[in-house]
Amino acid sequence: MSCQVIFQPAGRRGTVTLGKSLLEAAWELGVDLESPCGGAGVCGKCKVKIEEGFFPKYGIDSSINHLSPVTDEERQALAAEELADGYRLACLTKIYGNVLVFVPEESRGAKQVVLETGVRRSVTVNPAVRRYHLKLKSRNLGDSRGDWEFLREALIQEKNLSPEITADYFVLRKIAPVLRQEDGEVTVWVWRNKEVIEVQSGFHEELYGVAIDIGTTTVAAYLCNLDSGEVAATTSFMNPQVRYGEDVLSRITYANTSTGGLSNLNQAIIEGVNRAIANLVAEVGLLSRQVADLTLVFNTAMHHLALNLEPQFLGHAPFLPVVKEPLDLKARDLGINACQGAWVHALPVEAGFVGPDNMAVIIAEEPYQSPDVKLIIDIGTNGEIVLGNNKFLASTSCATGPALEGAQITFGMRAAEGAIERVRIDPQTLEVDFRVVGSSHWSGEAELMNAKGICGSGIIDAVAEMFKTGIISKSGRFNKYLPSQRLRKNGSGKTEFVLAWARETAIDQDIVITQGDVRAVQLAKAALYTGAKYLMEKFAVEEVSEVILAGAFGSYIDRENALVLGMIPDCPPEKIRAVGNAAGDGAKLALLNIDKRNEAKRVAKNVKFLETSLEGDFQSRFAEAMAFPHAKDSFPHLAEILSKIPQWKEV
Amino acid sequence: MSCQVIFQPAGRRGTVTLGKSLLEAAWELGVDLESPCGGAGVCGKCKVKIEEGFFPKYGIDSSINHLSPVTDEERQALAAEELADGYRLACLTKIYGNVLVFVPEESRGAKQVVLETGVRRSVTVNPAVRRYHLKLKSRNLGDSRGDWEFLREALIQEKNLSPEITADYFVLRKIAPVLRQEDGEVTVWVWRNKEVIEVQSGFHEELYGVAIDIGTTTVAAYLCNLDSGEVAATTSFMNPQVRYGEDVLSRITYANTSTGGLSNLNQAIIEGVNRAIANLVAEVGLLSRQVADLTLVFNTAMHHLALNLEPQFLGHAPFLPVVKEPLDLKARDLGINACQGAWVHALPVEAGFVGPDNMAVIIAEEPYQSPDVKLIIDIGTNGEIVLGNNKFLASTSCATGPALEGAQITFGMRAAEGAIERVRIDPQTLEVDFRVVGSSHWSGEAELMNAKGICGSGIIDAVAEMFKTGIISKSGRFNKYLPSQRLRKNGSGKTEFVLAWARETAIDQDIVITQGDVRAVQLAKAALYTGAKYLMEKFAVEEVSEVILAGAFGSYIDRENALVLGMIPDCPPEKIRAVGNAAGDGAKLALLNIDKRNEAKRVAKNVKFLETSLEGDFQSRFAEAMAFPHAKDSFPHLAEILSKIPQWKEV
Repeated sequence: MSCQVIFQPAGRRGTVTLGKSLLEAAWELGVDLESPCGGAGVCGKCKVKIEEGFFPKYGIDSSINHLSPVTDEERQALAAEELADGYRLACLTKIYGNVLVFVPEESRGAKQVVLETGVRRSVTVNPAVRRYHLKLKSRNLGDSRGDWEFLREALIQEKNLSPEITADYFVLRKIAPVLRQEDGEVTVWVWRNKEVIEVQSGFHEELYGVAIDIGTTTVAAYLCNLDSGEVAATTSFMNPQVRYGEDVLSRITYANTSTGGLSNLNQAIIEGVNRAIANLVAEVGLLSRQVADLTLVFNTAMHHLALNLEPQFLGHAPFLPVVKEPLDLKARDLGINACQGAWVHALPVEAGFVGPDNMAVIIAEEPYQSPDVKLIIDIGTNGEIVLGNNKFLASTSCATGPALEGAQITFGMRAAEGAIERVRIDPQTLEVDFRVVGSSHWSGEAELMNAKGICGSGIIDAVAEMFKTGIISKSGRFNKYLPSQRLRKNGSGKTEFVLAWARETAIDQDIVITQGDVRAVQLAKAALYTGAKYLMEKFAVEEVSEVILAGAFGSYIDRENALVLGMIPDCPPEKIRAVGNAAGDGAKLALLNIDKRNEAKRVAKNVKFLETSLEGDFQSRFAEAMAFPHAKDSFPHLAEILSKIPQWKEV
Repeated sequence: MSCQVIFQPAGRRGTVTLGKSLLEAAWELGVDLESPCGGAGVCGKCKVKIEEGFFPKYGIDSSINHLSPVTDEERQALAAEELADGYRLACLTKIYGNVLVFVPEESRGAKQVVLETGVRRSVTVNPAVRRYHLKLKSRNLGDSRGDWEFLREALIQEKNLSPEITADYFVLRKIAPVLRQEDGEVTVWVWRNKEVIEVQSGFHEELYGVAIDIGTTTVAAYLCNLDSGEVAATTSFMNPQVRYGEDVLSRITYANTSTGGLSNLNQAIIEGVNRAIANLVAEVGLLSRQVADLTLVFNTAMHHLALNLEPQFLGHAPFLPVVKEPLDLKARDLGINACQGAWVHALPVEAGFVGPDNMAVIIAEEPYQSPDVKLIIDIGTNGEIVLGNNKFLASTSCATGPALEGAQITFGMRAAEGAIERVRIDPQTLEVDFRVVGSSHWSGEAELMNAKGICGSGIIDAVAEMFKTGIISKSGRFNKYLPSQRLRKNGSGKTEFVLAWARETAIDQDIVITQGDVRAVQLAKAALYTGAKYLMEKFAVEEVSEVILAGAFGSYIDRENALVLGMIPDCPPEKIRAVGNAAGDGAKLALLNIDKRNEAKRVAKNVKFLETSLEGDFQSRFAEAMAFPHAKDSFPHLAEILSKIPQWKEV
């Protein structure tokens, strides 16, 4: 049983099986609909409007309700007027008859912006999987070798491969017909000169791998050409595990206390990863089963949940992981869709919550190559901080929360087209000037802005600017007496600040910063600051040669505003360097060069881990760090910045 | 929805889900019901009678029909009177209400007779999987190693295992809680000192493996204790692939020509193997997932179909297999239920149709250790013949058909309790004396015989005796003019010979040998004879020092009758030795001692294979060999045997 569905304004139409959700229908019909939570009913971004009435042009009578009833989740996510207007969440609405759907601008899937990495990283392309082309000779009648023995001999003789080479079971399953097509021309993929993981008839040039950075909130995946090293496609999506908990501890608790908890968490992320792989390879016209190799980085909790490892003992002191060493696992054992023989390489865990993602940051930034001490701060829902040089390396982690990734913020979004990524506020007029991803103009200069929300760097800028201009106080509270139209009370009587007027947006409503948004940023920056300070104290480092800021948003960050926010220990702004998603870069490097995997394995053993939450004064220091800027600190560099701002002659 | 089912005369009763078959209900309620084809609706052995009427004692009203309608298959398998009497095939009959079932004697599952191997084979127990008990010390607070690194260190330090040792992925998945129970006492299974395949909390002594001989018709499986080497349980069943074809070529054709053919064949055997494993381990109170190791032997076609390898190119000249070398595959990749980390070792293929089962026979019989030339004949649906000594080894294969396994014979059955295994016919009176498996008496001496059918050795005896007494001629035709009640016409007017009268049976009907049964035996023996003669001719061997007969039935075989039948080249009867299921023995040896696996790998490379079907005079020689005995042969030893029989002064 199926029915007609039409999506406007795209004009895509097609038949869909009864009972599918509008989101699934959109996927099937190739309609780009925002769904950062992957259809989990959590993010509320897949808002669509059902057109009512009879549309003879389309042969659709939408005056009859052909949809599943409005759910409680929709009642929460949608305003009363929206509900009255026929708005629904596409992921929660099932189709039971012909329907005409309008996708409003704000819900249209944004073209993903590939964040240029802050630094150019050069890497020798030396991947784990090598491709070989062979022209097999025809066999003598007396040659009774098995197909595999015949191919192996050719690989050893003609390609100088190890005589110890083996074949993956799934290669044995397909080898017979493959060797007999295309005149004996075959393409063979060999993993680490040890195992044949794929045979195909004919000569095929494509050789791709996927590097994935599984963050607590955001997952970034990169399709890399294993010949050129080029990143052929990039995608990112909200970790579908958010439906089970926003931070690592709540997910570990869910895994431990709910029946099937671990399995649910694991399936959610594996499904997300599989969808991401499918999307990536589609961009170059391939299928998932043509992915030859994968690398995974994640924090230790995500490592356990993605690999289906018991996270129970990671959740409390002494925070012991199941395994720390790097792992080579068959993608099929993990349920990951790739070449059937493909391996997945998971980078090593350092300690407790300092996971393979931090190891990836380290092999990307290579602090161990430098005599000068560097401080590397990787900002995610779980923040990871590394301090060190060629003499020592130390790390710690902190619960940052997802605010700096643009999540859990009223108008938060990922760094995609339309996201406000830079904010300036005039100290005199309190007027706002902003810039969105995908545009080179500031709002003051441009005709039309089409803002859709705020991403991580935008929220840092906004809060820092609000502090500098006195819109919020040292404690983070709104100064509601300031004379500005932008500072107003919302429907619930709470103060909020208008960053962009509806006319400047593509979503037809004002984009605001609420008191809750400011608090979320305060929690995040306090966690990062406290962690970094502990590390510097423990290793008696007074000033670092460089502060490296990594994270999905990182390359756009305003260095001064990061200092103003008190997110990092005081230092000259010119010493702050933003490097983008260094964890993702590390995953790519490990995908492109096996030596980087060995480097990670070697280095991981020598990183000293500091468990800051066990420090006696942690709570009090954390609470103090909530203020703008940190009250007990001496901050000559910050003081200089603030001294130039009329409102802040002294702090 | 469920209903009451009662099985009589066992008196087993219980509730069963609606829609299950009577056979499934029998399995669930622990009723022993014959089902050699595993419920495929092929063998017609699971005959049951539905009791009609109201049975207040049981609260069952069977006057209402609570079963699925009679199928065409049942109409074929059951006589009209049986159908009228309420007989059904349990595997094809679904339950839709309360029902009372009577299981007739002939359908009651026979206790499997463990065939003592013909020779005692001594083997050093040196299995691939070793068990280690560890008492883990409690960990220091500062010890931040992962659980796996902690365990590995203990294995290396305390058990001297290789520092290169790895853990199977599924070990990583379960290790965390296991190490924290039972005061740190753990049991670890290690495969080949290379990989940890299992961890359990507490000290566990059980360590079992399963050796499986997958024949075209019969599958034999052995549960072996990997400490003592003892065979703890044995089971055998009809290869469920028979539903897709009786011999290897018809199955290969099915795989090549039907959509999903290979997959159907593979699933059928894997399901059968999994059921067998479950039955075996149940006998020692274990579960399938407690099986630590497996070895598989099969002919090359069964090797491909069981391992899901493409059999297409094996089906025609030059009969090339996908792979010949021995394989170590993860049981989970094959879909075999065992310990999640367990490996399956498949012995090497020699050539074409001479498969790992023949390799198993060779490592069991070790002809390569002897200076004297031996002829080894392994009788199965596909017969395999080996000739050689410590100087050379040669092999060939032939399509024997399943007759000598007791299949495709009117009253054929496997060598289980109640099977007629020995037959003598008085040359004067043509009266029959027989012995059944499980009894030490001949029918002439005993009060009650309870025969149920004829197994392989019984059919060889019967046909040889019928020839010696003139009941059948040299060409195999019945001499219908002989004066004997036992020689009679059946309902279709065809002559048949009564081996056992209904009163001597447990199935309440006469057990007969038909003309078709004789023909099937003739085809089998001609194939074996022709193959053996070719081999001897090609390697210029006039007489062998020993003829070794292997096969599921082998140890009961009457040597003189084997000669009379013309199944083997002429030789002194005392040189014939029956060794039972030597292929199964070889599988057990490879399970118990890894050196035997290496031996098989080494020897397999040196066996010369002779493709007899490609010989120009194959058809004519095969046709000639159909006679009793082979007409063109000189057979001094056979002549001497026959000379003692009045009817056969000369041949």
